[in-house]
Amino acid sequence: MPGKIICTGLGPGDPDLISVRADRLIRTARHVAYFRKAGRAGQARRIVEGMLAPGVIEYPMEYPVTTELPVNSPAYRDALAGFYEDWANRLADLARTQDVVVLCEGDPFFYGSFMHLHARLQGRVEMEIVPGITGMTGCWNATGIPITWGDDVLTVLTGTMQEADLARHMQAADALVVMKTGRNLPKVRRALAATGRLEEAWLVERGTMPGQRVVRLAEAGYNDCPYFAIVLVHGQGRRPESGHGDEA
Amino acid sequence: MPGKIICTGLGPGDPDLISVRADRLIRTARHVAYFRKAGRAGQARRIVEGMLAPGVIEYPMEYPVTTELPVNSPAYRDALAGFYEDWANRLADLARTQDVVVLCEGDPFFYGSFMHLHARLQGRVEMEIVPGITGMTGCWNATGIPITWGDDVLTVLTGTMQEADLARHMQAADALVVMKTGRNLPKVRRALAATGRLEEAWLVERGTMPGQRVVRLAEAGYNDCPYFAIVLVHGQGRRPESGHGDEA
Repeated sequence: MPGKIICTGLGPGDPDLISVRADRLIRTARHVAYFRKAGRAGQARRIVEGMLAPGVIEYPMEYPVTTELPVNSPAYRDALAGFYEDWANRLADLARTQDVVVLCEGDPFFYGSFMHLHARLQGRVEMEIVPGITGMTGCWNATGIPITWGDDVLTVLTGTMQEADLARHMQAADALVVMKTGRNLPKVRRALAATGRLEEAWLVERGTMPGQRVVRLAEAGYNDCPYFAIVLVHGQGRRPESGHGDEA
Repeated sequence: MPGKIICTGLGPGDPDLISVRADRLIRTARHVAYFRKAGRAGQARRIVEGMLAPGVIEYPMEYPVTTELPVNSPAYRDALAGFYEDWANRLADLARTQDVVVLCEGDPFFYGSFMHLHARLQGRVEMEIVPGITGMTGCWNATGIPITWGDDVLTVLTGTMQEADLARHMQAADALVVMKTGRNLPKVRRALAATGRLEEAWLVERGTMPGQRVVRLAEAGYNDCPYFAIVLVHGQGRRPESGHGDEA
């Protein structure tokens, strides 16, 4: 009887925010795989600490060490592609006879690493994806302020984008989320300032996790933050809300 | 001992996708409030069917009947404001002595009705918000295709917006989510066609729920759909991914 690959979204970090379905799958799994950097515990593994069944077999999928390579170089891309290819093959082999649970922070289909395996495994093995609360959802809840009201337009950006592109999108949207901040923080701050939105911006680090920090970005006197920290600008509620009316 | 108001995000519709924390709070609640249209069961209440404890007291918060009023009229806005004001007062009274669990579809801080109570209750009563999986997250998972890769820009729009505004934002973003579709579907379709994106668009109705329907919008031969149906365009992965590298 063939097994399948079940990718469970872990949500923003608090294990209590994992879905009932993912929680059940994780607690009963026999084979559990997750991404991490070599030599680190890994954020996904840390979230499920204390939840795994005795005797579980773990498969840490360690990103190749690439610090010496520029991230946009062909060599870097080749190393990563080989890494994903290798793990896709190993998980597919395992799933011939066993169910494998893959742990993914946030939601697997929203800027997740799992999609690199998903693309390589499609059609080869049965897969199930269990949605999770996205990291950004955890972060805007951490600020205690709604992110969107009425007809607000929300745009999600990555700090890795060019500064001019960031600024252009920041100007056009009501509410903003900037993912992948880390060392890109000064650039994100400049783009927000250039579009007059720095004063409204918040920086959320370790949202919903121990050590959570929520600060106004303008008052955060530093230029670096965890890569998964998120910058937010809340919408102000564009135009009167026009439509709960069709609620079923 | 004063109680508090706990707003639990229910996620996209499948009760198995409620968070562990919200599930526990809902199952043990003595007082449960939720929005619904008069004469309807209400989507939030339907999601928790079979989960409520015996003897629970329910508070259906029924939107005022406003079908005769234009949605942008002052009279409509006054009716709604009075409705929220009234329920804010009733829940605040109740929370003097009891915990009250408010059920909210999706995530409470993402285009949710609860924020109208939240704004009126802030500082008057203790509140806790439990994040949920947004409806859009459930819907993009329902398509089986990742919504964003690499440096994709995601923009979330509402079908209630002007057609020209919709088109302008559709042109600028990689991935798209359009909320509040319903009777706005023809307008959304025209804006997508005008920006050359109709062929990539999907319509997801009742995402993660019984009767889920996922169709290509161009092939959906109808002009109306449930108000909570969502239109999606997936990102194609803008530029090579440049950064799992700071993973903790």
